[in-house]
Amino acid sequence: MVNIAVLGYGTVGSGVVEVINTNHDTVNSNAGVEINIKYVLDLRDFPGDPVEKILVHDYESILNDDSVDIVVEVMGGLEPAFTFVSKALSKGKSVCSSNKELVANKGPELLKIARDNNANFLFEASCGGGIPIIRPLNSSLTADDIMEISGILNGTTNYILTKMSDEGWDFEKALKKAQECGYAERNPEADIEGYDACRKIAILSSIAYGKTLNYEDIYTEGIKEITTDDIDYAKKLGYAIKLVASSERSGKDIYAKVCPMMVGRDNPLFFVNDVFNGIFVKGNMLGDAMFYGSGAGKLPTASAVVGDVVEAAKNIGKTIPVRWGEGKLELSERGSEEGRFFVRAKGAGEAKKAEINKLFGQVEFVNAGKDLETAFVTERMTEKDFEASYERLEDKITRIVIKS
Amino acid sequence: MVNIAVLGYGTVGSGVVEVINTNHDTVNSNAGVEINIKYVLDLRDFPGDPVEKILVHDYESILNDDSVDIVVEVMGGLEPAFTFVSKALSKGKSVCSSNKELVANKGPELLKIARDNNANFLFEASCGGGIPIIRPLNSSLTADDIMEISGILNGTTNYILTKMSDEGWDFEKALKKAQECGYAERNPEADIEGYDACRKIAILSSIAYGKTLNYEDIYTEGIKEITTDDIDYAKKLGYAIKLVASSERSGKDIYAKVCPMMVGRDNPLFFVNDVFNGIFVKGNMLGDAMFYGSGAGKLPTASAVVGDVVEAAKNIGKTIPVRWGEGKLELSERGSEEGRFFVRAKGAGEAKKAEINKLFGQVEFVNAGKDLETAFVTERMTEKDFEASYERLEDKITRIVIKS
Repeated sequence: MVNIAVLGYGTVGSGVVEVINTNHDTVNSNAGVEINIKYVLDLRDFPGDPVEKILVHDYESILNDDSVDIVVEVMGGLEPAFTFVSKALSKGKSVCSSNKELVANKGPELLKIARDNNANFLFEASCGGGIPIIRPLNSSLTADDIMEISGILNGTTNYILTKMSDEGWDFEKALKKAQECGYAERNPEADIEGYDACRKIAILSSIAYGKTLNYEDIYTEGIKEITTDDIDYAKKLGYAIKLVASSERSGKDIYAKVCPMMVGRDNPLFFVNDVFNGIFVKGNMLGDAMFYGSGAGKLPTASAVVGDVVEAAKNIGKTIPVRWGEGKLELSERGSEEGRFFVRAKGAGEAKKAEINKLFGQVEFVNAGKDLETAFVTERMTEKDFEASYERLEDKITRIVIKS
Repeated sequence: MVNIAVLGYGTVGSGVVEVINTNHDTVNSNAGVEINIKYVLDLRDFPGDPVEKILVHDYESILNDDSVDIVVEVMGGLEPAFTFVSKALSKGKSVCSSNKELVANKGPELLKIARDNNANFLFEASCGGGIPIIRPLNSSLTADDIMEISGILNGTTNYILTKMSDEGWDFEKALKKAQECGYAERNPEADIEGYDACRKIAILSSIAYGKTLNYEDIYTEGIKEITTDDIDYAKKLGYAIKLVASSERSGKDIYAKVCPMMVGRDNPLFFVNDVFNGIFVKGNMLGDAMFYGSGAGKLPTASAVVGDVVEAAKNIGKTIPVRWGEGKLELSERGSEEGRFFVRAKGAGEAKKAEINKLFGQVEFVNAGKDLETAFVTERMTEKDFEASYERLEDKITRIVIKS
């Protein structure tokens, strides 16, 4: 029997209990051992709830119980999660966490404590909810140099952009609906400003490239500025607008960014709609692959956490190798990255087109039936050159990166 | 250092050598040990080829070399592959195979020999080429009862159906193009009759449900009968026609089949086009997930094989647990499965519609501008009831399952 303790009895924590109870035969058979929930830690009481009898308020009782092999951290936030997790690992207990904040900030440190104590720090649920992506990167795509990871990693913003496109809703209405459906928090800033996706691509990139990518180094732009006009242009061009979190190698350079991008049909992310997430991976041998599924939600997220518990139970006393090694991943200077860009500016007619051609060289003009404005797509150029020209463009409205 | 021997220097075998040589730093770092190709076995000689020095024609020299830890079997076919693989496993050497014929026919037997000798029999590349699906099923989706696996598992037929839909080519022309592009064999029967997809879904189902699904038990129908008229109707209905290999639980029943299906936009397989493969998995907790990528090709397939080599190298002397257990998976009687069906018949007008309504009850008639025929979609009914009515329908042309 393997005893586990669940820290936090919120949405994901109660999901973990539900998954283990509902699927106990499958979970135990896959683990090769019985998984027993010995403790649930929460500050609150849950009178009448089945976990009432195993509920504790004091972490020390879990930490000092040597029969607890695995700690499930689903509290979220940096503290006290970090203190709890590092103490558990130091005692040789494995930890399974869904906490992207914790992993993005303290991943390498916690992985090291795990290694030093023959334990495991696993965090499949921190990126892409229920989608298996972290274990596949660590254990399946091991023959490849990863050239790119690009993900639709935030379900709320993908729901908003999908509804703006399919229903013609504006951003405010789509956000309101997302909140009514329970997808978006009352304070949705972390989602719509791209901060959530940014932490997730930092984690995935650190695994893929083997060194820590600091999320604060990643250029991040949200979707608040996207309008239905932008979406009309995207459709005209055969693109969808998605919030893409991306990191990419180009020769010796590595670039990373989070921003709205126009994505074409030749990229499988084009087809990732509503609250679903998708993670595109390009390997130098594998070519293109994508992992698709529910990026959030109580049971999908809990499914990933319990998958980690099974893996930890199969590897008691033995650290599973991970790609995320020591050192810091240095991103290349942002402006040197090449791409194509979609631009809108006020003003129409030949004079406007002449101004644009003078600034950007040859471009593809796009007509989506909007009066008194001109829109176009540039040829391939460095971001630095593009931004310099865009800066000088009169009456500019907006610009959006075209996903290559 | 871990020594490996590659059996077969054909497309995949030379790909394996190329992946290990090109990505040696990454491969060795992920394996935590240097992977050394000590032998390549082939009946042919390759004068001037870099493998010339390590080429052997006699398997016994590999088998009897105790320094060989891992054997890569990429010869294909049942014999001598089965003899070679079982002998290697019996000696405690792990085997990584891309051979779906071998796995579908001898999987449980070889897994048992591996277990009995503390070795591993790994076969990620046998299904879905480079797409990680077997290890995710064994090591990631372990918290779920798998309710369904449905895959587009054959790139050749998917290319043909995509071109018939996008370019309006008929089956013969699309097949010819597939052969010209090197996707289809000169004898394409295994692909277009669905035999290839059938073996792959048998393997995936055996892992997902934990018992051996004999591929001979799976109802299998190919795509030769699909016409551009069928595709016109599918488009009219908002569907795409795909060769889907599927197994599904419904209560205590398990059904499996391989046949052309009409797939809607709400299923991510809808978007899997050209030679790409996609594998849809539904878990009772996870919900819907999909794994997408290159289902064939030298380097993607070799990437999966080398990923297995890395995993085997990390687990020398220790058998990695798999879900595929003892026993035979009994499928439920085919006719009891429920679904909706698309049907075309010659004849038009009210009398024809009356005949159809009398046989099938309420249906949705479909008009795709074809003269002198009537097409419709049934309500949900058992396959047995459907087949009984279809049998009695006058001047029937064809019927296609609608993917639920």
